[in-house]
Amino acid sequence: MAEGRGGSDNGTIIIPAEAFTARFRIRFSHCDPAGIVYYPRYFDMFNGVVEDWFCDRLGIPYAGFLLERRFGLPTVRAECTYHRPTRMGEMMGMTPLIRRIGGSSVDLAIVGHIDGERRLEGRIVLVTTDLDSGRSIAIPDFLRDALETYLTACGPIAIDRP
Amino acid sequence: MAEGRGGSDNGTIIIPAEAFTARFRIRFSHCDPAGIVYYPRYFDMFNGVVEDWFCDRLGIPYAGFLLERRFGLPTVRAECTYHRPTRMGEMMGMTPLIRRIGGSSVDLAIVGHIDGERRLEGRIVLVTTDLDSGRSIAIPDFLRDALETYLTACGPIAIDRP
Amino acid sequence: MAEGRGGSDNGTIIIPAEAFTARFRIRFSHCDPAGIVYYPRYFDMFNGVVEDWFCDRLGIPYAGFLLERRFGLPTVRAECTYHRPTRMGEMMGMTPLIRRIGGSSVDLAIVGHIDGERRLEGRIVLVTTDLDSGRSIAIPDFLRDALETYLTACGPIAIDRP
Amino acid sequence: MAEGRGGSDNGTIIIPAEAFTARFRIRFSHCDPAGIVYYPRYFDMFNGVVEDWFCDRLGIPYAGFLLERRFGLPTVRAECTYHRPTRMGEMMGMTPLIRRIGGSSVDLAIVGHIDGERRLEGRIVLVTTDLDSGRSIAIPDFLRDALETYLTACGPIAIDRP
Repeated sequence: MAEGRGGSDNGTIIIPAEAFTARFRIRFSHCDPAGIVYYPRYFDMFNGVVEDWFCDRLGIPYAGFLLERRFGLPTVRAECTYHRPTRMGEMMGMTPLIRRIGGSSVDLAIVGHIDGERRLEGRIVLVTTDLDSGRSIAIPDFLRDALETYLTACGPIAIDRP
Repeated sequence: MAEGRGGSDNGTIIIPAEAFTARFRIRFSHCDPAGIVYYPRYFDMFNGVVEDWFCDRLGIPYAGFLLERRFGLPTVRAECTYHRPTRMGEMMGMTPLIRRIGGSSVDLAIVGHIDGERRLEGRIVLVTTDLDSGRSIAIPDFLRDALETYLTACGPIAIDRP
Repeated sequence: MAEGRGGSDNGTIIIPAEAFTARFRIRFSHCDPAGIVYYPRYFDMFNGVVEDWFCDRLGIPYAGFLLERRFGLPTVRAECTYHRPTRMGEMMGMTPLIRRIGGSSVDLAIVGHIDGERRLEGRIVLVTTDLDSGRSIAIPDFLRDALETYLTACGPIAIDRP
Repeated sequence: MAEGRGGSDNGTIIIPAEAFTARFRIRFSHCDPAGIVYYPRYFDMFNGVVEDWFCDRLGIPYAGFLLERRFGLPTVRAECTYHRPTRMGEMMGMTPLIRRIGGSSVDLAIVGHIDGERRLEGRIVLVTTDLDSGRSIAIPDFLRDALETYLTACGPIAIDRP
C-alpha cells in the first residue's frame, strides 16, 4: 500500500481516509496448527465488519435491523484472496468499501491490512431479504441512503480485476 | 442437477459417479438466528472435505501430511456462491473436483448438494508449502500422482465462468 | 479405562456396551497453534453428540424437535475436565450417559475416548423450554420415555465426584 | 448484582472496581437458531478474555508468551453456569477474577455481565506448560508476580459454592 493506496499486482483498491475500519486482535483461537489464521475465520470477521460498520458508522443497529425490523442480509457470494499469512497477536484492520449498490444487493470489497500492508482482499455480495419469508426485497430507503452517503464520502473504488 | 449433472444457469460442473463426496449433517451450530447455515461455516466444511478426501480417497493421511511430512497446504484463494439456503437437519454432500493442477497449487471446485440439488458452489486454491518455512514448494510426486489419478477417474470438468 | 470401565482417579464412569457413541475425526480446524484441540471446540462437539444421539438412537429428529415442535433445549450448565490432549487425525468417540432426569432438565455426562483411553469427561445440563417464550417446561413424554429407555439400557452410572 | 456486587442465589462473587473487564459485542455469529448465544462460543470468549487480560492488564503479550517464550497455557478444566440468555446486539463485559494461584496452575472465575446484571459465571483452570514438550512447569516468576499483583488489587473473592 505504498503512497497510501491499496495498489497491488493483483488489483487496485484505494483506501480513502473517510472509510470505516474495524480492528481485530488476531487471537489464539483464529490460528491453526501451522500458526497462521485459519482462513474460514476471516469470513467470520467479514460478518463482524459489516455489523460494526452498520452500528458504528452507518447508524443502523444491526441486531435491530434483523430482529425488530425483520430484514435479512444473507451473503450470496463470498470470496477472498490471501496475500500474506497473518499471525497471532497482530492487529488487523478491515475496511469495507462499496463496489456497487444494486436493487436488492450490495457488493462490498473488504480489505484486510496490518500497518498499512494489505494482507487479504475479500468480497461479499449481500442481499436484502424479508427475514421471515427469505425472499429478496428492495434495499430499504434508510439503508440505501446510508450506503450512498458512505459511497460518496469514500469515492468510487478502482478495481481492475473481476 | 437434472440428468446427473451439475449444470445450471451460473456454470456447469458435471459430478461424475467416480467423484468423492463427503457428507455433513447440518447442525444446530452451523445455523444462525435466521435459521440457515451461517456462510463462513461452509468454508470450514470445505477444509473438512479436503481432509476426508485426502484420508478416505487419495490415500494420504492429512494429519501425517502436515505434522510428520511437514507439508503445509494453505488456501490462497477461496470463493463460494450460495444458490439456496440450507437448514438444520439436512444432510449435505460436498464433492471436490479438480479444476487444475499447477506446479505448486491445486485449484478445486467444491459442489455442495442435497438430494441431487445444487446448493452452493465453492472454489479453493491450495498451495503446497514447506510447513516450517511457509514457502511454496512443488507438489510432491505422491500427491501429484494421487491428484492425477482422481482427475483421470472423474474426467475434466466443464466450467463456463471464471 | 482398564477392564472396560471408565474408572479413573478422578471419577468412575462405566461405559456400558449399550451406550451410544458418536465419532469425530479430529480435524485441522479443531486444533490450535499448540497442535492440540482448542478446548471450546469440544463443547461444540458435545452439542453434536446430543444431536446425533437424538437422531440416531433416541429416534427424535433434533431439527424437527426444535423447528417444528418448537421445543428449546438450552444448556444451563456445562463443564469439562481434560485428562489428556488430543491431536489432529485422531478419531474420538463421545458417549453420552444420563446422570439424572429431572422435571424439566436432563443432566448428562459425556465421555470422550480414543482407543479405549479416556481423554475428557464433560457434563452438560439441558433444560426443555418452549422455544418461542424461552420458558422452561416439563420434559415432554416422548422424550422422557426415550431417555428412560436409554437409561435402563445403559444402567445407572456411578459417579463419585460432584 | 444489586449494590454493585456479584451476589446471587447461586454464589457470591464480588466484582471489585480494580478488576479488568473485556467487552464483547454479541454478534450474529455468536447466536443460534433460537436467537441466543450458542453456549460453546462463551468458552471461546473466555480464551479471548485471558488474551486481553494478559496483553492489556498484566503486561504480558499473550502471543509472545506462547510463540517466543514457548510457554503453553492449556485449559485442563472449564465450566460455566448460564443464568440468563444473551441476545445479538448486547454488549457483554467479562471479568476474570483469580480464585487460586497454584504451583503450575491458575484457577480463574470469569463473570459475564451486561449493564450490571450477571448473565453467566465461568471457571477455567489453566496450567503452565513447556509448549514444546507439553509438560507442566512451575508458573514463571514474571507471570506469578503479575497474577499476585492483580489478586492483591482485586482482593480475594468470596465464592460460596464448589
